[in-house]
Amino acid sequence: MSAIWQILERAERLHPDRAATLEGRDAADYRRFGARIRRMAAFLRSRGVGPGERVAILEWNTAAFLEAYFAAAGLGAILVPLNVRLAPPEQARVLAHCGARWLLASSGFADTIGRALEESETTATLRGILWLDARPQEPVSRGLGLEEHAYAALRDAGEPAFEPARVSASDVAHLYYTSGTTGRPKGVMLTHGNVTTHALAAVAELRIDSTDTWGHFAPLFHLADAWATFAFTWVGARHVLLPRFEPADALRTISAERVTITNLVPAMLNLMVRHPRLGEYDLSSMRAILSGGAPIAPQVVRAVSAAFGCEYVQTYGMTETSPFLTLSLLSPKLRALPPDEQLAWRAKTGRPFLTVELEVRAEDGSLVSPDGATAGEICVRGPTVMPGYWNDAEATRAAFDARGFLRTGDLAVLDAEGYVNIVDRKKDMIISGGEKVYSTEIEHVLYRHAAVLEAAVYGLPDEKWGERVCAAVVLRSGASAGAAELEAHCRTELAGFKVPREFRFLDALPRTGSGKITKQPLRERDGRGRT
Amino acid sequence: MSAIWQILERAERLHPDRAATLEGRDAADYRRFGARIRRMAAFLRSRGVGPGERVAILEWNTAAFLEAYFAAAGLGAILVPLNVRLAPPEQARVLAHCGARWLLASSGFADTIGRALEESETTATLRGILWLDARPQEPVSRGLGLEEHAYAALRDAGEPAFEPARVSASDVAHLYYTSGTTGRPKGVMLTHGNVTTHALAAVAELRIDSTDTWGHFAPLFHLADAWATFAFTWVGARHVLLPRFEPADALRTISAERVTITNLVPAMLNLMVRHPRLGEYDLSSMRAILSGGAPIAPQVVRAVSAAFGCEYVQTYGMTETSPFLTLSLLSPKLRALPPDEQLAWRAKTGRPFLTVELEVRAEDGSLVSPDGATAGEICVRGPTVMPGYWNDAEATRAAFDARGFLRTGDLAVLDAEGYVNIVDRKKDMIISGGEKVYSTEIEHVLYRHAAVLEAAVYGLPDEKWGERVCAAVVLRSGASAGAAELEAHCRTELAGFKVPREFRFLDALPRTGSGKITKQPLRERDGRGRT
Repeated sequence: MSAIWQILERAERLHPDRAATLEGRDAADYRRFGARIRRMAAFLRSRGVGPGERVAILEWNTAAFLEAYFAAAGLGAILVPLNVRLAPPEQARVLAHCGARWLLASSGFADTIGRALEESETTATLRGILWLDARPQEPVSRGLGLEEHAYAALRDAGEPAFEPARVSASDVAHLYYTSGTTGRPKGVMLTHGNVTTHALAAVAELRIDSTDTWGHFAPLFHLADAWATFAFTWVGARHVLLPRFEPADALRTISAERVTITNLVPAMLNLMVRHPRLGEYDLSSMRAILSGGAPIAPQVVRAVSAAFGCEYVQTYGMTETSPFLTLSLLSPKLRALPPDEQLAWRAKTGRPFLTVELEVRAEDGSLVSPDGATAGEICVRGPTVMPGYWNDAEATRAAFDARGFLRTGDLAVLDAEGYVNIVDRKKDMIISGGEKVYSTEIEHVLYRHAAVLEAAVYGLPDEKWGERVCAAVVLRSGASAGAAELEAHCRTELAGFKVPREFRFLDALPRTGSGKITKQPLRERDGRGRT
Repeated sequence: MSAIWQILERAERLHPDRAATLEGRDAADYRRFGARIRRMAAFLRSRGVGPGERVAILEWNTAAFLEAYFAAAGLGAILVPLNVRLAPPEQARVLAHCGARWLLASSGFADTIGRALEESETTATLRGILWLDARPQEPVSRGLGLEEHAYAALRDAGEPAFEPARVSASDVAHLYYTSGTTGRPKGVMLTHGNVTTHALAAVAELRIDSTDTWGHFAPLFHLADAWATFAFTWVGARHVLLPRFEPADALRTISAERVTITNLVPAMLNLMVRHPRLGEYDLSSMRAILSGGAPIAPQVVRAVSAAFGCEYVQTYGMTETSPFLTLSLLSPKLRALPPDEQLAWRAKTGRPFLTVELEVRAEDGSLVSPDGATAGEICVRGPTVMPGYWNDAEATRAAFDARGFLRTGDLAVLDAEGYVNIVDRKKDMIISGGEKVYSTEIEHVLYRHAAVLEAAVYGLPDEKWGERVCAAVVLRSGASAGAAELEAHCRTELAGFKVPREFRFLDALPRTGSGKITKQPLRERDGRGRT
């Protein structure tokens, strides 16, 4: 399977009557889903969208978003999913960088888009807007010469005739702009081959079949959820969409729609596990919950498995890799361990995804020994790794090493079972008194203190030690603990040079647009405050 | 995963202690299997075998054969598995056509090879022979300037140091020569991408994992068995090898080694199901039996499932397609049918393999309607389809249509569930009185007569009808039935124009080298006898 369109065609032919999408009260089987996609694709083609052209989309988790993924693939066009959290000037920079011809969006984004269109460079390439629900009261592009149309008017009407474009495996299918902190947008190119190979490997790894129902709860503009669009359609499984996440809605949806598998970002997972009415929902349909983006403690894995009554799978990946690099699926040998010992393995970063060639390399380029202790950088290669960044040869060159491996920037140890465990981001590693200190190890110890809700460990410049270890901590509501107590707690489990010298107590940790904890602001604020 | 070598490396890293191969008393875990492969590859490299060069192998089903598949892949060389049933002059033609540099073989083939080497064109490119067991008493290449070495001497000795060649997905990994009847050898090229994509899709379709054991019972020089080399290694499953098939050995091996899945050609299946001591073996480990190459009747599916106590999967494929095109795996909807109704579906040719884009096209190029009745030619496209035939642009051009689909030459009907059912080979279709007659339909009716063991229906030139329908029949031992009785039997189930006008009673049907029934000799013999 080399082109994304064949995934859809297979589902249409083999599973025409099976449920494809459910969004609120709107349900479509694969026959109807395919017909909608053909109408969207035919419309965009009639407006001049051809192979290789960029079509951006700014949208919540709707069925129309799934339809856009396939319609663009059928046109041979490149879909550019926009992060709904970005501000209008940031959206404008992305639209300009990719040279988008058309923009698809729900009318709820009319204000954001109107303001983005005020940036002149945005509209240089843009020709029109397809509103995925109805048109806003007022055209947002007044005076800019853009077409505005409503998908709702054509979605279920007329002949769904459409001849897909010829596409090869190496053609770019998607651009995902990463939420870098530098301000310069970087567009990850994923090809039809990247996307289909990832989907096939996901079907194999997670044993997805037509009886599965995926809950699209995490944002569809991000690969943590988007990959499921392709894997679940391939086998004729069902997509259930929640336009905006709300924990009670998600629990109700799992129960009512018999969702079998989903991915939740850690914050969502947290809200659902702690939901006061959790026990009232029948979650017995669930067979696996995936999550990633942050390390997880074995105790939390236990709590999640108990709350949902299903397997927990820790995932690790990057937009640049379609995304999975590892999954904490247990080998038969490890599944034979007592349940409590299994938890430690399920909480690890995981073992390489089927199609990923993964190496952990020391600074001198040698492979680290699989001793569970020696750390090195994770480097990866394979058919799910991007060819590079859009129109950015410099960033592309910097991303790969001489042997064609993508440098992840993540430091990890490797154990004898082939499992990877991330100990730090390369840029977050601390060197204190010549000793390497990996922040994840210290954070894990802090998380084991009853009063600690969240912790981030980072280094600050230090005249004597080079860097000193610092910790920012968020306490659980109602709990209390001082620096001395936390330091003493760390001292019971860690060598002296690893124990934080300073503690900051915050109401919340700084996070990136996609919800990951980021340490740069901690280093800057502290640094400024002290020098 | 784009290169075959990564399949091995993954198994070595994640499953070093798991059993890899068992051949007689010789067992190897993946660490040892990998070390042997590295030694073979390093040796061949030391003898000058480089990327793109052809290495032929003439061998029974041994672990050394599996090792050769991976060693060649690591070198970037092209492995050419030879059909053990071919005569020396035929082997010589294949060796010359592919320009083999090295030949790997067990010493049992010394005579065959000695005679093949007498053909002068063979030795033009050949540099040496690696005997996979021990060297024969006498060098077979005396006076030809060839090196002869013994793999047994180096297989488990010395440093297994080997750096694999860089290989891309489009590089050719294997040449399989087809048993065409024209006498001109045609070498099917399969790339690293073909082989790895097929393996990944097979893992997904058949849910293969590290607890599986594959029985290599069908010949490893043929893709019907060879594909499992890659799929089962990928997930760290076990390979059990029977150098030469014998039904009691196969039954004993399944029982003793807890084989979970295998492929059997119809003749093997038949011998095993009818084996007088079948009931004495514990076959409870089996979870699936695959077979193909000939249509199967629902009653036979029932008998196989009962004998082995497991699922039966009908397979359809070609060497040109790595090989699977369809599998008769049942959808959840069909699995919900009563067991007897399921049999009919399990006996069908099947539904398209995950990575195969399959179309059934009428002579005018239009898609046939999925009505279970209208026949057309199966045409296929996708990443598991060969790029073409080795050094044969003409045959390659003839194999594909203008849209890049491979023409299979098989006529089939398509039903509403997306299942394909082959009704005839295109060249075997009969046109009588302007009506199309598909031989498989008539053969199925003949097979339902209690006296019929085997049947082949074919057309002969006829002045009045264009062609007339004829049948060659092999009766069960001890049974008797005359032409009149069989004609009457057919008349109860078939329209008049489909009923055979002539019956020939034979002791055996003509078969190709790979065991498939071939109708050409029937047409020739009858034709000559009558005109």
